[in-house]
Amino acid sequence: MSEAPVNPGGNFVKTVPEGDNRQRQVCADCGFIHYENPKIVVGSVVHFEGRVLMCRRAINPRKGFWTLPAGYLELHEMAADGAIREAWEEARARIEIDTLLAVYTIPRLSQVQLIYRAHLRDKAISPGPESLDVAMFTPDEIPWQEIAFPSVRWALGHYRDSQARSAFTPYSNPEGENGDF
Amino acid sequence: MSEAPVNPGGNFVKTVPEGDNRQRQVCADCGFIHYENPKIVVGSVVHFEGRVLMCRRAINPRKGFWTLPAGYLELHEMAADGAIREAWEEARARIEIDTLLAVYTIPRLSQVQLIYRAHLRDKAISPGPESLDVAMFTPDEIPWQEIAFPSVRWALGHYRDSQARSAFTPYSNPEGENGDF
Repeated sequence: MSEAPVNPGGNFVKTVPEGDNRQRQVCADCGFIHYENPKIVVGSVVHFEGRVLMCRRAINPRKGFWTLPAGYLELHEMAADGAIREAWEEARARIEIDTLLAVYTIPRLSQVQLIYRAHLRDKAISPGPESLDVAMFTPDEIPWQEIAFPSVRWALGHYRDSQARSAFTPYSNPEGENGDF
Repeated sequence: MSEAPVNPGGNFVKTVPEGDNRQRQVCADCGFIHYENPKIVVGSVVHFEGRVLMCRRAINPRKGFWTLPAGYLELHEMAADGAIREAWEEARARIEIDTLLAVYTIPRLSQVQLIYRAHLRDKAISPGPESLDVAMFTPDEIPWQEIAFPSVRWALGHYRDSQARSAFTPYSNPEGENGDF
């Protein structure tokens, strides 16, 4: 899962614009009101022959740690298409979506994560520019000590729990967990 | 479902920032790069004693038409909490979430909608500032000719379809539909 680049430019101050009821970031130079909204992350637990696809991050945060193929939904993109695109960009994996596995909210980051259960269309995978390495792990091989983010751990657990089911309510944050380390 | 106010200020031109691979809105005055992201709408089909809650819109777009309580997720807010907040703001309704009913994508608007199935905690409802009127409708009373948005129609149909089920995969856009009128 990737982070947006830091925004350069803008001379922002926090103030309540006229007619609004919340503080917003307003540029003191040009007057632009930057409405900040939660962001949507789309990703997938991709399985094939009893293994799941993981990517070792080539970028910060958590460079060198293992994650699932996931990233920000783009403008005008269907959510499932975004998950398919991220699997290609990060692992050169061609995937097919099975079902929606989980909807997580990370309030600290203002992220809603839509995580799908998917499978490989063919065996070929290789690292994209944001990955140092990609691998298909059996449950015993998953590097649990080197997982990049709490929600990756949740998704892998929820995937395992879901394997016997065809229709289910998507999982959400484990009780009391908000994604902080 | 409400719209964000139009952003005043900013003298934006579309250009590809250094190190990026997509066109972004960049302010010619202050250099701020305005990354645009899809937005998350949270809402609910709220039932009670065989009826569902609807709100008649007091604001454009689609003023005077009937909708479900829904709106943009705020920063740092859990998705289900946002749906609870919107039911209060638009219908002064105190609700409890049952389950996630549907995840819709409206690519034209770059919206992902998380629609919950919920129920009233008590009977009291009244219009909030964005509603002209609120009502609890039986299936026969729903004003099908005066529905504000296609996704409201989808959600009502999916709610009806879901009533007999306790655990199910959330519904998504009906086949071939993208939310355009």
